[in-house]
Amino acid sequence: MSLLIRNGRIVTATDDYRADIFVRDETVTQIGEKLELQADTVLDAAGRLVLPGGVDPHTHLDLPVAPGVVSADDFETGTRAAAFGGTTTIIDFPTQDRGRSMLEAVDAWHAKAAGRACIDYGFHMIVTDLPESRLPEMTRLAADEGIPSFKLFMAYPDRLYVDDGTLYRAMRRAGDDGAVILMHAENGIVIDEIVRGALRDGHTDPVWHARTRPVEMEAEGVHRAIRISEVARVPLYIVHLSCAAALEEVRRARARGVPAHGETCPQYLFLDASLYERGEFEGAKWVMTPALRDRADQAALWQGLMMNELQAVATDHCPFCFREQKERGRGDFSKIPNGAPGIENRMSLLHHGGVVGGRISLNRFVQLASTNAAKMFGLFPRKGTIAVGSDADIVIFDPDRRETISVHNPLMHHMRVDYSAYEGMEVQGYPEVVIARGRVVCDRGKFLGRPGAGRFLKRDRWAGFAL
Amino acid sequence: MSLLIRNGRIVTATDDYRADIFVRDETVTQIGEKLELQADTVLDAAGRLVLPGGVDPHTHLDLPVAPGVVSADDFETGTRAAAFGGTTTIIDFPTQDRGRSMLEAVDAWHAKAAGRACIDYGFHMIVTDLPESRLPEMTRLAADEGIPSFKLFMAYPDRLYVDDGTLYRAMRRAGDDGAVILMHAENGIVIDEIVRGALRDGHTDPVWHARTRPVEMEAEGVHRAIRISEVARVPLYIVHLSCAAALEEVRRARARGVPAHGETCPQYLFLDASLYERGEFEGAKWVMTPALRDRADQAALWQGLMMNELQAVATDHCPFCFREQKERGRGDFSKIPNGAPGIENRMSLLHHGGVVGGRISLNRFVQLASTNAAKMFGLFPRKGTIAVGSDADIVIFDPDRRETISVHNPLMHHMRVDYSAYEGMEVQGYPEVVIARGRVVCDRGKFLGRPGAGRFLKRDRWAGFAL
Amino acid sequence: MSLLIRNGRIVTATDDYRADIFVRDETVTQIGEKLELQADTVLDAAGRLVLPGGVDPHTHLDLPVAPGVVSADDFETGTRAAAFGGTTTIIDFPTQDRGRSMLEAVDAWHAKAAGRACIDYGFHMIVTDLPESRLPEMTRLAADEGIPSFKLFMAYPDRLYVDDGTLYRAMRRAGDDGAVILMHAENGIVIDEIVRGALRDGHTDPVWHARTRPVEMEAEGVHRAIRISEVARVPLYIVHLSCAAALEEVRRARARGVPAHGETCPQYLFLDASLYERGEFEGAKWVMTPALRDRADQAALWQGLMMNELQAVATDHCPFCFREQKERGRGDFSKIPNGAPGIENRMSLLHHGGVVGGRISLNRFVQLASTNAAKMFGLFPRKGTIAVGSDADIVIFDPDRRETISVHNPLMHHMRVDYSAYEGMEVQGYPEVVIARGRVVCDRGKFLGRPGAGRFLKRDRWAGFAL
Amino acid sequence: MSLLIRNGRIVTATDDYRADIFVRDETVTQIGEKLELQADTVLDAAGRLVLPGGVDPHTHLDLPVAPGVVSADDFETGTRAAAFGGTTTIIDFPTQDRGRSMLEAVDAWHAKAAGRACIDYGFHMIVTDLPESRLPEMTRLAADEGIPSFKLFMAYPDRLYVDDGTLYRAMRRAGDDGAVILMHAENGIVIDEIVRGALRDGHTDPVWHARTRPVEMEAEGVHRAIRISEVARVPLYIVHLSCAAALEEVRRARARGVPAHGETCPQYLFLDASLYERGEFEGAKWVMTPALRDRADQAALWQGLMMNELQAVATDHCPFCFREQKERGRGDFSKIPNGAPGIENRMSLLHHGGVVGGRISLNRFVQLASTNAAKMFGLFPRKGTIAVGSDADIVIFDPDRRETISVHNPLMHHMRVDYSAYEGMEVQGYPEVVIARGRVVCDRGKFLGRPGAGRFLKRDRWAGFAL
Repeated sequence: MSLLIRNGRIVTATDDYRADIFVRDETVTQIGEKLELQADTVLDAAGRLVLPGGVDPHTHLDLPVAPGVVSADDFETGTRAAAFGGTTTIIDFPTQDRGRSMLEAVDAWHAKAAGRACIDYGFHMIVTDLPESRLPEMTRLAADEGIPSFKLFMAYPDRLYVDDGTLYRAMRRAGDDGAVILMHAENGIVIDEIVRGALRDGHTDPVWHARTRPVEMEAEGVHRAIRISEVARVPLYIVHLSCAAALEEVRRARARGVPAHGETCPQYLFLDASLYERGEFEGAKWVMTPALRDRADQAALWQGLMMNELQAVATDHCPFCFREQKERGRGDFSKIPNGAPGIENRMSLLHHGGVVGGRISLNRFVQLASTNAAKMFGLFPRKGTIAVGSDADIVIFDPDRRETISVHNPLMHHMRVDYSAYEGMEVQGYPEVVIARGRVVCDRGKFLGRPGAGRFLKRDRWAGFAL
Repeated sequence: MSLLIRNGRIVTATDDYRADIFVRDETVTQIGEKLELQADTVLDAAGRLVLPGGVDPHTHLDLPVAPGVVSADDFETGTRAAAFGGTTTIIDFPTQDRGRSMLEAVDAWHAKAAGRACIDYGFHMIVTDLPESRLPEMTRLAADEGIPSFKLFMAYPDRLYVDDGTLYRAMRRAGDDGAVILMHAENGIVIDEIVRGALRDGHTDPVWHARTRPVEMEAEGVHRAIRISEVARVPLYIVHLSCAAALEEVRRARARGVPAHGETCPQYLFLDASLYERGEFEGAKWVMTPALRDRADQAALWQGLMMNELQAVATDHCPFCFREQKERGRGDFSKIPNGAPGIENRMSLLHHGGVVGGRISLNRFVQLASTNAAKMFGLFPRKGTIAVGSDADIVIFDPDRRETISVHNPLMHHMRVDYSAYEGMEVQGYPEVVIARGRVVCDRGKFLGRPGAGRFLKRDRWAGFAL
Repeated sequence: MSLLIRNGRIVTATDDYRADIFVRDETVTQIGEKLELQADTVLDAAGRLVLPGGVDPHTHLDLPVAPGVVSADDFETGTRAAAFGGTTTIIDFPTQDRGRSMLEAVDAWHAKAAGRACIDYGFHMIVTDLPESRLPEMTRLAADEGIPSFKLFMAYPDRLYVDDGTLYRAMRRAGDDGAVILMHAENGIVIDEIVRGALRDGHTDPVWHARTRPVEMEAEGVHRAIRISEVARVPLYIVHLSCAAALEEVRRARARGVPAHGETCPQYLFLDASLYERGEFEGAKWVMTPALRDRADQAALWQGLMMNELQAVATDHCPFCFREQKERGRGDFSKIPNGAPGIENRMSLLHHGGVVGGRISLNRFVQLASTNAAKMFGLFPRKGTIAVGSDADIVIFDPDRRETISVHNPLMHHMRVDYSAYEGMEVQGYPEVVIARGRVVCDRGKFLGRPGAGRFLKRDRWAGFAL
Repeated sequence: MSLLIRNGRIVTATDDYRADIFVRDETVTQIGEKLELQADTVLDAAGRLVLPGGVDPHTHLDLPVAPGVVSADDFETGTRAAAFGGTTTIIDFPTQDRGRSMLEAVDAWHAKAAGRACIDYGFHMIVTDLPESRLPEMTRLAADEGIPSFKLFMAYPDRLYVDDGTLYRAMRRAGDDGAVILMHAENGIVIDEIVRGALRDGHTDPVWHARTRPVEMEAEGVHRAIRISEVARVPLYIVHLSCAAALEEVRRARARGVPAHGETCPQYLFLDASLYERGEFEGAKWVMTPALRDRADQAALWQGLMMNELQAVATDHCPFCFREQKERGRGDFSKIPNGAPGIENRMSLLHHGGVVGGRISLNRFVQLASTNAAKMFGLFPRKGTIAVGSDADIVIFDPDRRETISVHNPLMHHMRVDYSAYEGMEVQGYPEVVIARGRVVCDRGKFLGRPGAGRFLKRDRWAGFAL
C-alpha cells in the first residue's frame, strides 16, 4: 500500500518547505521535489499545509466519574471526533482504583480502547494510592508496558487526591525510572473547605464553581508540585494550567533551571468566567476544573505559549451531556460532573487564535499541537513530525477556510455530546484530509477510518532535556 | 515607688536622644532634660544605651515533647535567663491536645507560668485540631483571653501537623476576628517521607537531620501558607524562617501587597550546617527545626533583616540537655528532641552581628529585638518602646563590653541546660541593668527579681497594617 | 520663651501616646503626664493629633526655568504656604549653571531664601556640569556647607541633563564623602527624540506631554541610575517616582541589598493622565515631569508606600500660573513650563488617602511625611520627630475635619498660583496649629510667622543604613 | 552535479532520523530510505551525524580597529577556518564611518569579501551615525540590499558608540521596516570613566580590562536596550551576552512578552576571568569585550541556553596576533586590541560542553549552532536546516572523536593568528566532512573549497515571532 501527497507546503516544528511525500504502508519513506513514484493513492495538497497529525496528550474517554456517570465519548466516538479535528494520537488516563493494582486499571483501559479506537493512543497512569509495596508497579509500567508517565491529583479529596508523601514517593520512583510526572495542581483540600462554606451559605449555582476555586489555590498547587519535584529530581508536566498566577510559578522554576513544563487548553485560551453567569443553569456547561478564569489570564497564557513557558495545548476532553449529565448538579454546583468537550476543536482553535491571530508562527503551532507532546511523552519521532521513518500521521490543512463551531455544523461536531463549549465561534483553519499511519481516515467531513484501526503506543522514557 | 534613669542615650525604634527618664510605679511618666525629680532609685546611665526591654515572641518553656521529655527551662529558669539577656517580655505557646479544648491548654499554661515567671509573658495558641465546633474557641481566645494569635504546624505529622483544610479554617476565622496566624512552614509530610527513606538506608547520625529537611520544603511551606492566607485574608507571620529560598517567598508576597511577615532566629544568623558534622554525637546539640543551613542563607537572612523582609528576631528557645535528653536520639536522629537554647543570648548576638557588624542601625536593632514583635502581637505601646505611658521595661545596655558566651561564663549563661549553642563566641554588647515594670531585675549579673513578678499580658488584636 | 502643649495624642514614626509637651525656646525639653510647668503659651490639643512638623524634601521655589519664567512661589510665599499645610522644613535645589561653580549657585540660593523663608530649609545641590576639577566642590559642600546631597538629571538635555560619565563621577565622589545622590530618572534623550517626532507629526496639545514620556523610559532611568550607583557604591534616592514599572526596579534593587530609595508625590497618588484630555488647554495645568500616569500606577505606588519600597512623599512643588505662564506652551506642548503646585496640600492629602483611606497607619503617615526624609537627609533628630532635644516643629492636626482643596478656600490655598492641581477635592485632616522651632506660625488659617524666621539647616551625612 | 550522502543520522533542530540525502547542484532535492539514485559523489555517513552547516552570525573579518591594526583573519582565511569548524555561513559587519554613508561601508565590505570568501556570508550593518537624513539608507539596506539587521554600540565612545537618541531612531525605523536590531549592550560611557580612573591610579595590566568592566554595566546596557526597543517596537538581539546579571534582564523582558533575544559565545561558556591573571602579559590574549566573567556566570549562561533565554551561540571572532598586535597594549590595557579568535572552534566546543556535557540535546545543539540564527536573520530555510529545497550546507560530524584544540594541531587550527584562546582543551565532536552548497569544502583536514566560492546572501526580514 502506498500514498503520495503532492504539491503541499510541509510545515513541521522547525521546517517549512514545498515537497512531495511518499508513504509506503504506514511510514514516510521519501520526501522530495516532484517525486516520480507510483502510489495507490495520490493526494494533491496544492494550496494546503501538510502538517504532522495532532497529538492530544490529555483526554478522558469512557471515564466513570460517579456511579452511573461516564464521560460521554468512548474510544470510538472520541477518537473519531479527534481525527475529524486533525488529531491522530491521543493519550488517555487509566485510573487506579484505590487499594487495587495499577495494572488492573491498565487492563481495563486496554479493554475500553481495543477494537474501538480509530487512531493511535497511549496511556498515562493515574495513581491514587501508592504504598511502598506498589512502587514496583510503576517501574514495570515505565519499563515494560510503555507507560512511562504518571498523573497525580492534588485535588478531588474524595476520589483522586493523594497526599504530599505519596506525591514524593511517586516522583522519586519516576525520577529513578526516567518517567515523567503529570500533575493536576490545585489545592483541593482548601478548595473543598471553601466549597463547603459556600454551600453552607446557600450558594448552589454553577457560578460558585468558579468562585470557590481561586487562582491562588492553583498557583499554590503548581509551586508545591514543582518544589517537591525538585527534591525528587523528576521532570514535571502541569496539566491544564489556567491562569497567570500559576504560569508565574512555572516561569520561576524554569528560570532556576528546573525541568517544569506546562500544558494549557483551548477553553482557558478562549473562554472566560463570565460564561458561568448565564441563566437557566447554562453555566454548568463550562463546569470544569480548573474553572474558567479572566481575560487577563487568557492573555497571559497566550504569552506563555509564545515564550515557551507553556509547551503544549491539550483538551482535557471530558464531555458530559448538558441535558442529562450536567443536570445532576442542579441545586448543588459541587455535584455537576466536571469537564467539557473539545477533542475535535483543538487544532482549528489553536490555528485560529494563534496563527491567524498573529501570536504564533506555523512552526510554533505544530510544536504546540503535536511535536512537543510527542517529545515529552516518548512518541517522537514516530509521532509529532513529518520525516523519513516517521509514522505517516499527516493532516492536509486548509489555512484559509472558515467554519463555525456548532453542534449544528456537521463538519465540526462529531463528539457524542449535546452541546459545544464554543458554540457559534467562527474559526479559520480546517483539517481537510486526515491520514493516520498512511490511511486516509477523514476527508472533508467523511469518515473513512474504522474502529479498531488505532493501536496502543508503547512510549519511550523521557529524553532528559527540558522542552 | 519611683525610679530615675539619668544621663542615658535613649534609643527607640525611631528615636535616639539624651534625656532622663522618670518612672512612677510601673510606668514611664516623664522624659526630659535633666529632670529635677526625687526618686526612690536613681540609676546613672552615662555612656550606656537606654533601650526598650526586649520582646521574644517565640519561646517554649516547660514544653513536653515526648513521654518523659520536657524542655529543660521552666517559666522560672527560662524567664530569669531571658531577663539576664535583656528580654523583659516573652510570648510562649500553649499547645492544644488533639481532641481537647484549646482553653484547657491555656489553663495548663497559666498554671505553668503563674508564680514562676520573672517577667511578663503572653501566649500564642497552638492549634492542633479544629473541627467547626471549636471555631468559637478561637474567637473567645482572641476577644476575651488576650490571645489573638494562633500557631499552626505544617510539619510534625505525628504530633502537631494540621492539614490545609484546617489551616484555611483557622486562617479564615482569625481573619474575621482580627487575629494573626503564626506558621511553622515546612512540608512535614514530604520530610517525614524523606526521613523514613534515610533511616531505611541506615543513616542515623545527627547530620541526617539536616540532609532530610531540604530548603525547598521550607520554601514550599512558606509559599503555601502565604497563598492560603491570601485567600483567607489574614495577616501571616512565618516563624523561624531559615533560608534564602523561603525568604524569597516572603519577599514576593510582600511585593504583591500581602501582609506576610517573617521572623528569624540567631541560630540561623550565626550557625551553619557544618556543625552537624562534629563527631561524638555532638551535632545533636543543634538538632532543631528547621535545621541549620548554609552561610549563603545566613547572608540572605541578614539582608532580609536590613531590608525589612524579615521583621523580628526571636529565639524559638526550646532547650534539651545534651547529656540526658539529646541522648535519646543516639542511633536514630529522628528521635533527638528538637530544639536548642538561646533565650538569654538574643539581644547580645543581634547587637553584635547587626550593629557592631555594621549591618543595621541601633534603631533597627530595637525594632527587631523589641518593637516589631510588640506591634505585631498587640503589646504596643505597653511594650516595645520607651515613651510616656509605656511600661517601664528598660535595658541599660553597654554597647562596648565584650563577653564570651559560654556555659562557664556566669554573666552569660543562666539557662538550665548543660551546653550553649554559641559556646566560645565573643560578643560585643551587654545588658548591664534590666528593669521590668519599673523594678531592677538584673544588675550586672545579679538577679534582683522574683518568680511570680511577671504577669500575663492580655494582648490586643492586630492593628491592620503590615509591618 | 516657653510653650506647653497639653492633652494631645502624640504620634511619631513609632510611638502613639498621650502626654504633655514642654518647649523651652526652640526645643522640646520635657514630655510627660500632666506636666505641672508654667509656660508663656499654653495650647490645648485635646482631641487632636500632635505630630512632628512635615519635611518636604523636594521643592523648587523661585526657580528660573526659561528666560522670563520663574516658578510662581518664592521663598516667602512658598514657605508660608508650606507652613499652612503642616510642613515646617523644606529642602530646595540650588542649580549649578553649566560652566560655573556650584558654590555660586549656593550663594544665589542663600540670597533667595535669606530674609524670606518662614520655616527652616536646607539645600540639595543640582549638578549640571562636573569636570574632575570641580569634584572638590562636592566634598566641600558635603563637609562644610551642610549640603551632603546632590541631584542629577537624566532628562532635560537642553538644560539639566548630565551624561552617564558625569553620573558615575558624581556618585563615586558622593559615595566617598558619605553623601547621597538624588536622581531625576527618565531617559530624556529618548524622550526628546519622541517629542520631536510628535511635534513633526503635528501633535501640539498638552496630552502629548504624557504620550511622549512612556513609563518604560522612567523604568529605564531608574534601573540605570541604580546600576551605576551599585558600581559607585553610593546610596540613591529616586525623586518623584511615578509608575509601577519604575517602582519594580527599586524593589528589585532592594531585594539584592542595594540602598535604593524612592520618593513619590501626591500628584502621582491622586491624579491620572485622563486630566490631560480636558479641553481649553486645561491639561497644561498638569504638565509636569514625569507625566501623570494611570490608575493602576496609583495603586502600585500606594502599595509601595505601604510596603516601604517607597520611603517618602514630597511635592516637587514647582508652580506656574495657568493664565500667564502655562500659556507659553499653547501650540507646542514642549514649551509648557513643567511643574505644578502642591507644597500646601501634601500632609492633608497623604492623611486623607493614606490614613483615612485605610492604607497606612498613623505612624507610617509620619514616617512618609516627615521622619524618613529627615533621616535620609541628615536632619534627624533635629527634625522629623517629637523627642526631648529635638526642634519644636510640631503640628496640631485635626484628623476629623474635612476641607475642600480649592483656590477659593482661604484655609487651603496660600500658594501664589492661580489654580489648584486638586481643585474641588475634599480631604479629611487639617493642620490646625503649626509650630516652628517653638513658635506658632499658623493658627486655624491665620499666619503668625514672619519672613526670615526660617533658618538654613546644615545637614549631616547619610547614616549608612537603607531606610 | 549531484551528491548522495548515505546512511547518516540526520539531526535538525527538531528531527532525528536515518535516511539518505540527495543533492542536485546546490540544493537538497530528496531525502529518503535507501535512495536508489546515481550521484557524482557518494559519501558514506554511517556512524556519523549529518547536521545542517553551522551559522555564525557574529564575525569580524578584515576589520580595522585602529590605525595599522586590522583583525588577523581576512575573508579568505577566516571563512576557510570557519568551514573547517563546520560553519558554512557567517554574518559579518560592515561598519559605517561616522559622517559617511552606510552604503559606502557595504561596498567596502563587499570588496573585502568578493573573490575571497570560501563560504556564504551575509552582512549586518553597524550604524555609528544616524541623522534623520540617513534613515532612508536603513530602509534601502533592509528592502533592497538584503541587510535587514543593524548593530549599534552602547560602548566604545571614541569609535562606535551612539547615544540613546540614535538608538531610538534606528530602532524605530528598523521596527517599521521589519528589521532587527543587534546590540553591544554595555554602558561604555561609565566604563570609560572607570578605565580612566584605573589608569590614573597606575593600573595598566590586562587584568584591569576585566576589573573596569563590571557586570552591572552590562546588565544596565541590556536593560536599557530592551526598554528602548519596547518603546520603538522592534525585535532585539543582544550580542555576546556574558553574565548572569545581563541574562536576567533578557529573561524578565521575555517574561513580559518582549521579543528580546540573546547570543552568547564559547569564550563566555568555557573561559573565566582568572586567565587575566597570567603573567608575562599573557592575559592580553583574552582581552575582549565584554571581558571574561566568573564560573557562576558560565553556569548561568549554559542554563540560559538550555531554557531558551539565549537562542544562539556565535563567536564574535575578532583575532589579533599576540606577538605583534596585542603587544600594543603593553603598559596600557586600554590599548590592547579587543577580540579573540574562535570562528573555527564553535561547533566542537558547543557539542562538547553542551551535548557531551549532558546539558543540551542534539536538536538543541543544532538550534543554537545553526537554525536559530538562520531564522532570526532571514536565512531560513535556505540555511539552518536539512530539508528539501534548502541549500545543501551539510556537516558530517563525528560525535565521538576527541581532538585537542591547539595551534599545533593541524586539524584544529586554520585561523591566521598565533595563539588559540582554548589552547590545550580536548573536545569531543569533530566536523569530518563539510559541504557548502553541495560541494565538499573540507574533508578530514583537507581543504577542497576555493576562495570566491562563497556568495553574498541577501537576507529576508524578520518573520515576526520571538524565537
